[in-house]
Amino acid sequence: MSRTPGFSFSELARDGHARTGVLSTPHGDVLTPTFMPVGTQGSVKTLTPAEVAATGARIVLGNTYHLWLRPGPELVAQLGGLHAFTRWPHAMLTDSGGFQAFSLAERRTLVEDGFVFRSHLDGARKALTPEVAMEVQGLLGADIAMQLDVCPPGGAPRPEVEEACRLTTRWGKRCLAAKRPSQALFGIVQGGTSVALRMAHADELGALPFDGLALGGFSVGEPIAMMHEVVAQIGPHLDPTRPRYLMGVGTPIDLVHAIGAGVDMFDCVLPTRNARNGQALTQHGKIVIKQARYKEDRSPLDPTCACPTCAGGYSRAYLRHLFMAGEILVLRLLTEHNLHLYGRLMREARAAIAEGRYAAFARAWLGASGAGNANDANDANDANDANDANETVGATESTE
Amino acid sequence: MSRTPGFSFSELARDGHARTGVLSTPHGDVLTPTFMPVGTQGSVKTLTPAEVAATGARIVLGNTYHLWLRPGPELVAQLGGLHAFTRWPHAMLTDSGGFQAFSLAERRTLVEDGFVFRSHLDGARKALTPEVAMEVQGLLGADIAMQLDVCPPGGAPRPEVEEACRLTTRWGKRCLAAKRPSQALFGIVQGGTSVALRMAHADELGALPFDGLALGGFSVGEPIAMMHEVVAQIGPHLDPTRPRYLMGVGTPIDLVHAIGAGVDMFDCVLPTRNARNGQALTQHGKIVIKQARYKEDRSPLDPTCACPTCAGGYSRAYLRHLFMAGEILVLRLLTEHNLHLYGRLMREARAAIAEGRYAAFARAWLGASGAGNANDANDANDANDANDANETVGATESTE
Repeated sequence: MSRTPGFSFSELARDGHARTGVLSTPHGDVLTPTFMPVGTQGSVKTLTPAEVAATGARIVLGNTYHLWLRPGPELVAQLGGLHAFTRWPHAMLTDSGGFQAFSLAERRTLVEDGFVFRSHLDGARKALTPEVAMEVQGLLGADIAMQLDVCPPGGAPRPEVEEACRLTTRWGKRCLAAKRPSQALFGIVQGGTSVALRMAHADELGALPFDGLALGGFSVGEPIAMMHEVVAQIGPHLDPTRPRYLMGVGTPIDLVHAIGAGVDMFDCVLPTRNARNGQALTQHGKIVIKQARYKEDRSPLDPTCACPTCAGGYSRAYLRHLFMAGEILVLRLLTEHNLHLYGRLMREARAAIAEGRYAAFARAWLGASGAGNANDANDANDANDANDANETVGATESTE
Repeated sequence: MSRTPGFSFSELARDGHARTGVLSTPHGDVLTPTFMPVGTQGSVKTLTPAEVAATGARIVLGNTYHLWLRPGPELVAQLGGLHAFTRWPHAMLTDSGGFQAFSLAERRTLVEDGFVFRSHLDGARKALTPEVAMEVQGLLGADIAMQLDVCPPGGAPRPEVEEACRLTTRWGKRCLAAKRPSQALFGIVQGGTSVALRMAHADELGALPFDGLALGGFSVGEPIAMMHEVVAQIGPHLDPTRPRYLMGVGTPIDLVHAIGAGVDMFDCVLPTRNARNGQALTQHGKIVIKQARYKEDRSPLDPTCACPTCAGGYSRAYLRHLFMAGEILVLRLLTEHNLHLYGRLMREARAAIAEGRYAAFARAWLGASGAGNANDANDANDANDANDANETVGATESTE
């Protein structure tokens, strides 16, 4: 299988199914497991690239759908590509645009050739084919591109899920044929909550020369326990020589489970979107900052947290005041805090795997999280919804 | 005259009427001339304290009206005062709340005792007397408090302006009687555009033991050239042993003129508010970032600027994209840029005064600014309006 020059993955240590490794890209090495903050429109909302990197992130995700419509891939390419445009110096991955084209756009239809839809911005008619997805991603110039895929909703009938797998494979081949030599390309395994369909599709895509394999179609409405169970089985089944990426997931608890199943990469809007809705995540639960109980609370969000918000001495009372007053600063401070939590989780997971104590680490994390806290069952399903709509509009009306 | 312990002003050098000095406060020394960024609700909008300090600012302004209504001065005091609450370690000044109580609040009336009004937030009935203004400011705990004053609109009839001066003097005496020993207090000279009224009122207030003297009632609708002319005459007339503060003004050009008249301190929402409206200020004019001409513009806002936005390599094209896409990051980047311009102007003015070349410096600055640019005549009058309304709502609808 021919792989992409400048791109490679090496497993450094394994502990059960969990593993830690290095993803090498033209924009530097990324230690895995890794969490990719979402920079929907060329910005991880509210933060500078330096602040994002300070959370530990060394790869971010850009949304092809949004950047295709605005400012347009030709302009981004003319200005040196997404790295130069956004001043993000580390690795970058773009999705294919299909997920948003299907869920965000208006009057969209799915045909053999791709998606036809109208822009949610100006109603312009657009067609997203595998070739277009590769062309747009090539112009954006991320280190890793994603194939165009079909993502059926949670609970879709089995024939629809099977057809999605077949079409995704056909599109995957067309993407490989259209791919730029300098850009890595990941295939996307579908199959809903059927382990058998997932395994078959993973084998089918694994036979193709993708640089990595992703799990799509999770966190789209299925019960959260079912997602954990299916990922636990399909994760270890994915070709271990390539990076494994669980798309659009999830809560810290979801990530702890999936890392245990051998997943290497994640993205999710949850930490950034929840921050803008006034939610600070901690290992021990979530803080809804507008609650009256924080009105006189002098303590930081999390006394054990070393992020600039907690270490900077900002009290819950002050953060609450800023949120109630609609001040933008609080959106930054909560976003930084949440991404630092994800960064810390990844760092600690890597260390635990390297030291052969991942099971104990996972038990400790899941135990501390308990029930009914930051990792509510609903959050993971919220997350992929937000990947579409909420990240688009920037923030909630109540605060901005 | 008894002055406030821990507070002093020393003139270091004079050049014509322009002067540079040091304002000493319990939270450190402030070199003058100085510009105070406006932190309406306990936050210089979009920025952290460290970012504000990096612009060169060593004193910020807090709005008593806003903080009185939310979160309330008792809470701020309980949490250690405005410095501890907001994490701003340097000097701080609060206004009296009168300007906003009169312009922002609903159903407000002016009586001998003060203002009676209803909160713009919840309609609660409030009375703002000189004693209340001092009590609230005392609880907020800034280094410098302002007396309650009456600010007539631009173009008010002379009898109204005269009565405003008389009432302001009576209120000033009541504020002095109610003032906390640990907090400096400035008097506010009114008199509209009448140099004679201004001089008389300055003498009246100058006879009272205020720690500083401010010029209120400018940039409220009068022609900009008339403001420059009146300030040019009244500035040098204010007691030189005390700091002189021109309230709510203005554009860089206004500041260059007023520094030439011996003014030491300024505040204005213009650099922060205009940033959130997508305007970047430069010495050579203003950049309206949404304009199509910047769509492919790779250059920074100002190649001569060392602010994090310009030095950070963000292109006008990227900033335009962020603004069009409603991304919060651009509001930060433009705010930082604009406040850095004001910081640089103050730094360069101080150096020019110390070196006896202020007139040449002012000519060069005004010449570079030219006409019809960042310093449009309208901007200064906009500024005080914004001090009320626009700073309150956070940002423009179009961008957030």
